[in-house]
Amino acid sequence: MASSMTLALDAMGGDHGPEVIIPGAALSLSRHPDTNFILVGDETRIKACLGAHPALQKRARIVHTDLAIGMQDKPSQALRRGKGSSMWLTLEAVKNGEAQAAISAGNTGALMALSRLILRQIPGIERPAIAAQWPTIGRPCIVLDVGSNIGASARQLIEYALMGAAMARAQLGIERPTVGLLNVGVEEIKGNEEVKEAHTLLKQSNPGLPFDYRGFVEGDQIGQGAVDVVVVEGFAGNIALKTAEGTARQIATYLRNAMALSPITKIGALLAKSGFRVLKGQMDPRNLNGGPFLGLNGITIKSHGGTDAIGFATAVDLGYEMARKRVIDRIAADIASIAGKLDAPVDEKQN
Amino acid sequence: MASSMTLALDAMGGDHGPEVIIPGAALSLSRHPDTNFILVGDETRIKACLGAHPALQKRARIVHTDLAIGMQDKPSQALRRGKGSSMWLTLEAVKNGEAQAAISAGNTGALMALSRLILRQIPGIERPAIAAQWPTIGRPCIVLDVGSNIGASARQLIEYALMGAAMARAQLGIERPTVGLLNVGVEEIKGNEEVKEAHTLLKQSNPGLPFDYRGFVEGDQIGQGAVDVVVVEGFAGNIALKTAEGTARQIATYLRNAMALSPITKIGALLAKSGFRVLKGQMDPRNLNGGPFLGLNGITIKSHGGTDAIGFATAVDLGYEMARKRVIDRIAADIASIAGKLDAPVDEKQN
Repeated sequence: MASSMTLALDAMGGDHGPEVIIPGAALSLSRHPDTNFILVGDETRIKACLGAHPALQKRARIVHTDLAIGMQDKPSQALRRGKGSSMWLTLEAVKNGEAQAAISAGNTGALMALSRLILRQIPGIERPAIAAQWPTIGRPCIVLDVGSNIGASARQLIEYALMGAAMARAQLGIERPTVGLLNVGVEEIKGNEEVKEAHTLLKQSNPGLPFDYRGFVEGDQIGQGAVDVVVVEGFAGNIALKTAEGTARQIATYLRNAMALSPITKIGALLAKSGFRVLKGQMDPRNLNGGPFLGLNGITIKSHGGTDAIGFATAVDLGYEMARKRVIDRIAADIASIAGKLDAPVDEKQN
Repeated sequence: MASSMTLALDAMGGDHGPEVIIPGAALSLSRHPDTNFILVGDETRIKACLGAHPALQKRARIVHTDLAIGMQDKPSQALRRGKGSSMWLTLEAVKNGEAQAAISAGNTGALMALSRLILRQIPGIERPAIAAQWPTIGRPCIVLDVGSNIGASARQLIEYALMGAAMARAQLGIERPTVGLLNVGVEEIKGNEEVKEAHTLLKQSNPGLPFDYRGFVEGDQIGQGAVDVVVVEGFAGNIALKTAEGTARQIATYLRNAMALSPITKIGALLAKSGFRVLKGQMDPRNLNGGPFLGLNGITIKSHGGTDAIGFATAVDLGYEMARKRVIDRIAADIASIAGKLDAPVDEKQN
């Protein structure tokens, strides 16, 4: 029998607070009935929401705090004044071993700053990254970094590759995930210096790596499922992610208008309803909500701030699965296994 | 009466050469019957294609050359060995005033290198950029740079803003286009140093600029038509463009599969055919094919290498319209009008 699982939730995070977090937790519990919850935040508001979810109430412990970090607070403010806030105490529950993962829909910058402070980085990792699960025409892939840092050295890009691959292995069950470096072309001469250097290092180390490095990929290959893990520095990665979200929304608008063109198209759309339901599911960002912070001594999952209970439950599920599959141990082992191997100077870099 | 217009076409560029370029030119001519063409490339192949297009034949002059730059040639090879090639002679026709725009589906790096060498930059412009017309739920917007350079200084980002605005004014007929800087968030603390510095400079200069600077935009706002011109350095810009293209293709696949789900959805899709036809047009990349190189003393339009005659005709149309509307003169005048204004140091940058 599996050991018991406890997840810590920042009940005050996101645009809606407990009114979304609590029903989201209840939904996730219905899928993983062995979960225990630590709910951190305003006790009165949490209790008011719990009334409608007796199963969750039985498995939840409330940690009260009056403090909450605002969606507009800067990371520096969170570090200075965040002690004792719902986000802080949620992360502390993971640090103290009371919970196996922290899930928050609170502000990304503050959550990353506090996660780094409280959970600390895995030895050997220079920088944590934010990963996203990206839908493709095949199985979802993992893209990172989608906004933890601006820019990345070759060494950091390789760390991202390793962390993303560990997550793909644990999360998607792929023994030797394929990894690509996002670039502006697939030829060796393309890209900035960091990307080219990471490419050279990965190529020459490939047989010894715990993943299969496939070289450069371009933006249009992500959604085609060309590789299991797409590595990119956080500025371009964040822009790619949001551009894809925006394009999906834009096409959904086109499609709605096109189906409302005439009485005949409306009847057609009605008949095709079951097909549109499938499409809607494939395009629903709630089905892949939850961006894990990778590279820390503990699991933090960032949920979209504006999501609803269905979306938040997906992020809770992700925390559950990553804890169950021991992704952190896997990353730590992989980093240790290649320690030193990737730091050697490369032939082309001699002069 | 409008003065006569001559366009120079690299007949050997792209994946297909004259077999796509010639029918593409013929299609564009049917829309702009006052165009003359200079067709550069293998005379025998060009003539073989012209047979089917008598109207084009009458308005076309062939410049023969045996040399063509390959789709895989590096920019440095094109510079060293490209003299006398179809791409080179096409650009020279613009330089010598025989043509008002050059259109090529040849390789982007080579085309940019030769355009810089032959046409030279507009005085005051540090770097040319490649612009893309981007479909939105409103009118199309202009995004630049989508891959001319990796990285951009604050000064160069401002040049992009100015060139994109000049194009929007000429091309889309908007007197004072709105401009946004693409970033990973809309708060002032977000982004890299170059983006933040450009933001500060643009904000304080706004009343005197020939466009309306609206601050930061995120990737998901491009397709919403939030601004007329989106400015970004070329690495992230190219990734954003290709990611959007890939997402559109991915959703088209979802949609096709969803409509083939059952006999009923197939009947529904058949009834909704006229709606799907509208949608297809909105999502068809051929309808916005053609990326102008901005910042040079002459118009170069880069067409997608793999496009067909319909797509190539769109790129030819764009060359026609940009020449007709004197976009280059507009950029030169705008750059001159702000010369000196944007180089002053900014308050925050004193220390």
